Amino acid sequence: MHDLLMIDGLQYSNWNEEIFRQMQSGGLSAVHATIAYHENARETLSRIGEWNRRFETWPELIRPVREAADIRLAHQEGRVGIFFGFQNCSPIEDDISLVEIFRQLGVLIMQLTYNNQSLLASGCYETEDNGISRFGRQVISEMNRVGMLIDMSHSAERSTLQAIELSSRPVIVSHANPSSFHAAKRNKSNAVLRGIAESGGLLGFSTYPFHLKGASGCTLEAFCDMVANTADLMGVEHIGIGTDLCQQQPLGVLEWMRNGRWSKDKDYGEGSKDNASWPSPLQWFRDSRDFPVIARGLQARGFAEDEVRNIMGLNWLRLLESATTAQH
Amino acid sequence: MHDLLMIDGLQYSNWNEEIFRQMQSGGLSAVHATIAYHENARETLSRIGEWNRRFETWPELIRPVREAADIRLAHQEGRVGIFFGFQNCSPIEDDISLVEIFRQLGVLIMQLTYNNQSLLASGCYETEDNGISRFGRQVISEMNRVGMLIDMSHSAERSTLQAIELSSRPVIVSHANPSSFHAAKRNKSNAVLRGIAESGGLLGFSTYPFHLKGASGCTLEAFCDMVANTADLMGVEHIGIGTDLCQQQPLGVLEWMRNGRWSKDKDYGEGSKDNASWPSPLQWFRDSRDFPVIARGLQARGFAEDEVRNIMGLNWLRLLESATTAQH
Repeated sequence: MHDLLMIDGLQYSNWNEEIFRQMQSGGLSAVHATIAYHENARETLSRIGEWNRRFETWPELIRPVREAADIRLAHQEGRVGIFFGFQNCSPIEDDISLVEIFRQLGVLIMQLTYNNQSLLASGCYETEDNGISRFGRQVISEMNRVGMLIDMSHSAERSTLQAIELSSRPVIVSHANPSSFHAAKRNKSNAVLRGIAESGGLLGFSTYPFHLKGASGCTLEAFCDMVANTADLMGVEHIGIGTDLCQQQPLGVLEWMRNGRWSKDKDYGEGSKDNASWPSPLQWFRDSRDFPVIARGLQARGFAEDEVRNIMGLNWLRLLESATTAQH
Repeated sequence: MHDLLMIDGLQYSNWNEEIFRQMQSGGLSAVHATIAYHENARETLSRIGEWNRRFETWPELIRPVREAADIRLAHQEGRVGIFFGFQNCSPIEDDISLVEIFRQLGVLIMQLTYNNQSLLASGCYETEDNGISRFGRQVISEMNRVGMLIDMSHSAERSTLQAIELSSRPVIVSHANPSSFHAAKRNKSNAVLRGIAESGGLLGFSTYPFHLKGASGCTLEAFCDMVANTADLMGVEHIGIGTDLCQQQPLGVLEWMRNGRWSKDKDYGEGSKDNASWPSPLQWFRDSRDFPVIARGLQARGFAEDEVRNIMGLNWLRLLESATTAQH
């Protein structure tokens, strides 16, 4: 298969030239880069500033994706398009007007929660799930208007189903796997996966070991079986890849992701006190260079060429093209 | 003269539907709206958010100007294009990366100072003028790169001449008058005006009474004489209009402009303790509806039709088109 347009639906790495070269040599045309976990509005501007600096420093490797169409340009240019997303709603603080402003700055995706209850919804680690808050309803409607995708990867079940019901546009889970494959708090029930598909959205399969059966020992064959089973459930047009790659990040970043400024006790997220660090990577998926391994695995599992093309990138591309335009 | 494309190079009004209708009936195709005096980055996002709300509320009257070309669209549509500017550098705080981020949000113009010394330069009310600071040199170069116009309306003389020398692109004074016409701290020497013209920049003539000989009693004829004399000095392609209209603003806003958060003693700016409030408006220029009065005055003063067109808007338009593109 030549000239695949491949998209990774989530990464949060310690961005540097080596990582961008890996993306390029793996054949990626675009990567959804997380730019905020717990950052407020001002701090998020600094994250965007850091990316602008990277775009200036490595123009031969990466380019900004302000609108989905820029991904096709990146593909033609042989560069990697970077599109921004938030894993939390902290950047908009309590201010509805910041949704549009961050969309103007190229933020195409926002999660309504990151594990914890937010001003908008409940996270997947809370014991109680109140669904979507008053502010949450306003934000969903504003995200629909300006064309910012709603991502429920780290949200609780009831909140997720309500968000799908309230949203007039597709809702996604950019990086997670089905609970039926591996029962983890971050993975998703069949009810959620069906809802995502019915909304016109997409599930991005995660290669993060905590989301996989057998963790770091999960085989390519088991991963591709999971993809095939999910294609049967959701429809092959509603699945993609969202690796959740966090390359070269020190433990302190993992601790920031898990604890932000919200906890005095240490929270271990998907790990535990005895297993507090980053998991070992998969043998067959070290980093972005191994994207073609997944494509070949899917082919070997029996997916047709056009299905592989859709799963590896075109489903993401079409969704971004249709769901991130402004509505008038 | 039909179908003039007219631009006001500075207003800071208490924006509402009535004011937008006045702009439209005065025939304005674009207005440079000040969105910050003393605001920090976060507060400036709120000002942009308020404008986004206005664009959503009155789409038949106003439209955003994110790039200069949008002004031609506004003219065709019969709407008023609004482009953003800062009268101070407070929105970028101490962070060079905020220059590009605010440019991405449509800020086309920034003053390096507002009356006082800033992190970048000295203001026209300081007794000492150190010229351009270390950070100021970085910011000038970054403004040149991203295509944000340098405005020295409220800056001190030496700082202004240095900014012109350091900048590789045009420098403007969006709203002031020649000191030779009326000696006010805010008005500009012939040396500054010549420097602005040599840089390829522009002077926008102010209708703010404190900047005019005879203040509120200044006649249209005297104003047009000033324009003619300045055209002789700078060249007719380097002048435009920048009214400094501040309509329907309460005294508290004038006090905010003058005092921000920086002074415990009350500063009266161009006024005084006995004359602390807004000056009375000119008889022949109440508000935006009287733009055609200026055009007719210039014609009566002997300007040719194409000169009137240039002064009333096309000089501003061409400058914005050439000086607010990104440089690679």
